[in-house]
Amino acid sequence: MPEEDPVRDAGGPDGCGRDGRGAASSEAAPPGRSGADCQVRFLPVEQTVQVAAGATIEDALVAAGLRMPLPCGGQGRCGRCVVEVRAGEVRRRSVVRLTEEELARGCALACQTAIEGDAVVWVPPVEERFERFERGDRAEKAASELPVCPGTAVPWVVALPLDLPAPSLSDNMADLERVQTGLARQHGMQDVIPTLTALADLPQSLRDGEWQVTAVVEQGNGVDLEAPRRLLAVVPGAPPVRTWGAAIDIGTTTVAVYLGDLATSRLIDQASAYNGQIACGEDVISRIMYGRRPERRLELQERVVQTINGLLDRLLERQGGAPDDVKVSVVAGNTTMTHLFLGLQADFIRLEPYVPAAAWFSPQPAARLGLHLHPEALVDCLPAVGAYVGGDITAGVLRAGFHQEDPVTLFLDVGTNGEMVLGNSEWLLTCACSAGPAFEGAGVASGMRAVDGAIEEVWIDPHTFEPTVSTLGDVAARGICGSGMISLLSELRATGLIDKSGRMVAHDRADRVRAGDAGLEYVVARAEDADGRDVVLTETDIQNLLRAKAAIYAGAAVLCDSVGLAVTDVERVLIGGAFGRHIDVQKAIAIGLLPDLPWEAFSYLGNTSVQGAYLALTCREYRRQIDELAAKMTYLELSADNRFMDEFTSALFIPHTDLSLFPSVSASPPDAPKEGVDGL
Amino acid sequence: MPEEDPVRDAGGPDGCGRDGRGAASSEAAPPGRSGADCQVRFLPVEQTVQVAAGATIEDALVAAGLRMPLPCGGQGRCGRCVVEVRAGEVRRRSVVRLTEEELARGCALACQTAIEGDAVVWVPPVEERFERFERGDRAEKAASELPVCPGTAVPWVVALPLDLPAPSLSDNMADLERVQTGLARQHGMQDVIPTLTALADLPQSLRDGEWQVTAVVEQGNGVDLEAPRRLLAVVPGAPPVRTWGAAIDIGTTTVAVYLGDLATSRLIDQASAYNGQIACGEDVISRIMYGRRPERRLELQERVVQTINGLLDRLLERQGGAPDDVKVSVVAGNTTMTHLFLGLQADFIRLEPYVPAAAWFSPQPAARLGLHLHPEALVDCLPAVGAYVGGDITAGVLRAGFHQEDPVTLFLDVGTNGEMVLGNSEWLLTCACSAGPAFEGAGVASGMRAVDGAIEEVWIDPHTFEPTVSTLGDVAARGICGSGMISLLSELRATGLIDKSGRMVAHDRADRVRAGDAGLEYVVARAEDADGRDVVLTETDIQNLLRAKAAIYAGAAVLCDSVGLAVTDVERVLIGGAFGRHIDVQKAIAIGLLPDLPWEAFSYLGNTSVQGAYLALTCREYRRQIDELAAKMTYLELSADNRFMDEFTSALFIPHTDLSLFPSVSASPPDAPKEGVDGL
Repeated sequence: MPEEDPVRDAGGPDGCGRDGRGAASSEAAPPGRSGADCQVRFLPVEQTVQVAAGATIEDALVAAGLRMPLPCGGQGRCGRCVVEVRAGEVRRRSVVRLTEEELARGCALACQTAIEGDAVVWVPPVEERFERFERGDRAEKAASELPVCPGTAVPWVVALPLDLPAPSLSDNMADLERVQTGLARQHGMQDVIPTLTALADLPQSLRDGEWQVTAVVEQGNGVDLEAPRRLLAVVPGAPPVRTWGAAIDIGTTTVAVYLGDLATSRLIDQASAYNGQIACGEDVISRIMYGRRPERRLELQERVVQTINGLLDRLLERQGGAPDDVKVSVVAGNTTMTHLFLGLQADFIRLEPYVPAAAWFSPQPAARLGLHLHPEALVDCLPAVGAYVGGDITAGVLRAGFHQEDPVTLFLDVGTNGEMVLGNSEWLLTCACSAGPAFEGAGVASGMRAVDGAIEEVWIDPHTFEPTVSTLGDVAARGICGSGMISLLSELRATGLIDKSGRMVAHDRADRVRAGDAGLEYVVARAEDADGRDVVLTETDIQNLLRAKAAIYAGAAVLCDSVGLAVTDVERVLIGGAFGRHIDVQKAIAIGLLPDLPWEAFSYLGNTSVQGAYLALTCREYRRQIDELAAKMTYLELSADNRFMDEFTSALFIPHTDLSLFPSVSASPPDAPKEGVDGL
Repeated sequence: MPEEDPVRDAGGPDGCGRDGRGAASSEAAPPGRSGADCQVRFLPVEQTVQVAAGATIEDALVAAGLRMPLPCGGQGRCGRCVVEVRAGEVRRRSVVRLTEEELARGCALACQTAIEGDAVVWVPPVEERFERFERGDRAEKAASELPVCPGTAVPWVVALPLDLPAPSLSDNMADLERVQTGLARQHGMQDVIPTLTALADLPQSLRDGEWQVTAVVEQGNGVDLEAPRRLLAVVPGAPPVRTWGAAIDIGTTTVAVYLGDLATSRLIDQASAYNGQIACGEDVISRIMYGRRPERRLELQERVVQTINGLLDRLLERQGGAPDDVKVSVVAGNTTMTHLFLGLQADFIRLEPYVPAAAWFSPQPAARLGLHLHPEALVDCLPAVGAYVGGDITAGVLRAGFHQEDPVTLFLDVGTNGEMVLGNSEWLLTCACSAGPAFEGAGVASGMRAVDGAIEEVWIDPHTFEPTVSTLGDVAARGICGSGMISLLSELRATGLIDKSGRMVAHDRADRVRAGDAGLEYVVARAEDADGRDVVLTETDIQNLLRAKAAIYAGAAVLCDSVGLAVTDVERVLIGGAFGRHIDVQKAIAIGLLPDLPWEAFSYLGNTSVQGAYLALTCREYRRQIDELAAKMTYLELSADNRFMDEFTSALFIPHTDLSLFPSVSASPPDAPKEGVDGL
């Protein structure tokens, strides 16, 4: 049975929900005024709603049609849904993350606060960091840098010209049979099964083309040329018929689409956007929690489909195409994202013993999933290995290519989750280390994603302790993104402002270090230099970051240990995922996030998930290899592994308890020249 | 290119349409008031709409949300959409079938009359004969009389108990994999592909059942046990899981559903209803004409799906079942009905050289077609042979069973169309003879379907010429159904009231014969004995009936001639279809509809189409035989056959030009005792 969350279940819908009727169950109603209606007036929007006593403020927000982001899925953990109760009776079930000052002001967590009488509630504007953000479609590695299909070049979908005899009374076979006969005689293609879409208007197409037509045929299932072929469309005449395909990477944070031409394997265009599910939780656990009720599971599915469709629409508009042009798609996502995309129950992914509904998914027609593709286009979700190693990783390994090479390679995909694969052509070992989204900005006071205004690099003067920062987009700083955090941590340690356990040292010369609500904090940018608010790193933030980096390092150490290797035996480290892009490898080593290997051993590959999906889309040999890979990979469940906890504890220091593992760090002077990763 | 109908295409939507916006194209607008708005007031409903000048009265009816049946599909042929123009300017494009008296009253055909100014139009109540009529679910032949499955008894869908090990950290394969492993180990069933529906809630089902579950598996495609298996559902525990199936016969007039238990092959229940498409045309040609525009094609599809769903709902309610209980369905229909059900363009079925979009249809999931079955239940449409010999006939031959026997057999399915098959275990020859729906009441002044109030048998006193009639339901006569027409024709001829060419003889003693609007007519029931209106048979009616019976006889004659046989060489006549039920064989022979064979040679089998579909549903050997049958049958296109016109002309007499073909008729005294068909 699934673990239940009585607060959420009693409290009803939340700010992200469609199911908010504003009425709480009687179980949650307070003793005094059970079931009675309360009037809640929201400011500054000036909206008033009636809800039953006992409903949460969130219920009331939903009833009023107002939206409130819920990064933790309404569990009362993230402290993001803060509102101010200006008047009226409420009961706070939890005040986690609220300061004394905030409580004194009347602040409350919308998801954790029950309404017990008429109330006036002030709702602050939604923070920009949670708003949907369209990336600037930055260029990924050019397609020419991707590996070349090693197998048959026969594309998944082909357009074939047909020259058919016109029917007569003595030759009046059905139109479909005529097309099938033509395909067999003119292209040696037997037993092509018609789709209903192709069949519906086949008669008019044949006659409009005066029996010269172009048949669009899906050849096999992407892996096997001998699998049943399907007739997707019949177009009059012999026009250039587009056989495009879409490779879709569903990340917890970001969704990316590559649009490619199946006939030539040419990458036509690409786009990415934030996953529309973010408002329902920032990490996979929060999403799973959010989606426990069927109507919310449906909502999550609709949200990601909407995100994908927005990207497809944008790409097609830009390229002058139409949904019908896209004849097949390959989807890579972590196991939870793939479940939510397909509408599958994901609850047991988060509960021991961490079991997904499926690790292999049968392809579905696009129309069934509501994607803006040709209605009969197959949507092929790449296979997962386990609950926390999904199709994004099998795609990533394919892209990285070390499954066919000799050197022992560590592949890291540090996005919202932290997955890694160790191996070579003989064996593959994988694990997920629950690093959490700290490097993406969650759990860090001034954390944010890598968008304009994010501090991506920091240098601290070892004498004055004054920082110099570089921000994305060269605008005023609004927060710190993952690469900035690594850079900052490394500088704080190098200048001695923090000790090896991450504790801040209130240096008498460092007026940037001050006491804040959560202990000491370092002011990276003052309000006047930033976007009107101090950008800080607190001791709590540092502990969160250390936990994330320790989990990643410990994961790698356990993988190595499982095959009798030391971390330093790794010959090559390949990094994928959005987070990897801006990492300064030497600083990452300095804080003990990456193993201490020569910088030539590191390569950054970009979004390996979407690239792997694209390779599978355009090359059936690659598609086949992914099935093979997924079956071959051994999944190590770290939560069941005592070694992991030991390694994790040892890695909670900067860089590590065992300094012999980081010879270059102890030897490195604070202000040694920094080198970027190859290819950045 | 399809033949276009400029009047309909210019005139826009009709009374049966969804697309009525009330605005006609400018092309159809009259010169005087082009494009201007006209106000049309409908009586007695007192509704007023604005339409553009040039719109038809039907356009206006649709705009007003009023419905008008269109048996001929709005071609201006049937004369059913009569309205009275009480005031205003209109332009009648056609006045076919309107009498002088009617025109004097202001009558007009709604589909053929353009509005040229403000108008007041009286709309008569819809005649009951066109209203949707739910049959009384009369008992068909008991299932025990149907042939027994000769092949493997392995049902199409099975429910299999599974006892699975609970997962643990050391055994945390995905839920699907656990089920697949269980199916392989416990039932020897490999490679079962999950449906998305089965997968969506699989995790909860497994845990609710504490790893004891029942898996519902579709075994192969109905023909081949080795075809890919699909997992349709997983139910917690080991409850009795229903694996029901639906056999659906889509007739042009009537839709019938048999609900059966796949596990036992037991027929659970049956129901039938009029096809909801009737309002858009009574015969297949009218339906095809009606459905030429995409939105109307969709409407026709929705109408028949609605009819089927109504039947399914009724059966399931009666049996305490739910749509999810029905795990597969087999559909039999003539080629046009199958096309319209699947939403395929049917236009070229009606135009030489008579080519359907497809004669073989790949199964589709029920959800895609909107049927009230388990969403993943396959809907398997039985294969057709040609444009006018569909899955209803291949199903019928299977049911009749003569494809495996020696005697040369003629199988007749005389419903709205007239299809027949001649053959035995060695060969099968088939044709359709465009008999038209005269025997179902169309084209006959007092014609109606075989429902309460229909005269089904007539006896005429040879001396007084007074008739005695028997009506269905023993209520006052409202019209004559097919069997009544055969009976009446036979009596009129036997008493000498009509000659062998069908011309009426105004006998001085027969005051039942009188002059009507369309020549002489025989009054079968006077208004005072009937439902307030004389029930008559006119000379025009008789000519229509003779054409229908001649087409059927000529079809049989050409089939026989094609294999060097005379009609009298036929050893057995098997009759299927609704029309056959009440036929008095001797009277049908007397008018030359059926060949003159001893009455023991005739058998009536009931609705062979739904029975054949049911056999295919419950027995995969039978399903396989239908594919074989369809491939084996030789289709004779009569319109391309000169012999047919010769035979047709000879058969326009009663019983025939060549009386030697009907020895029993010429020898038969007028009042010989009549024998019914075996089994009636």
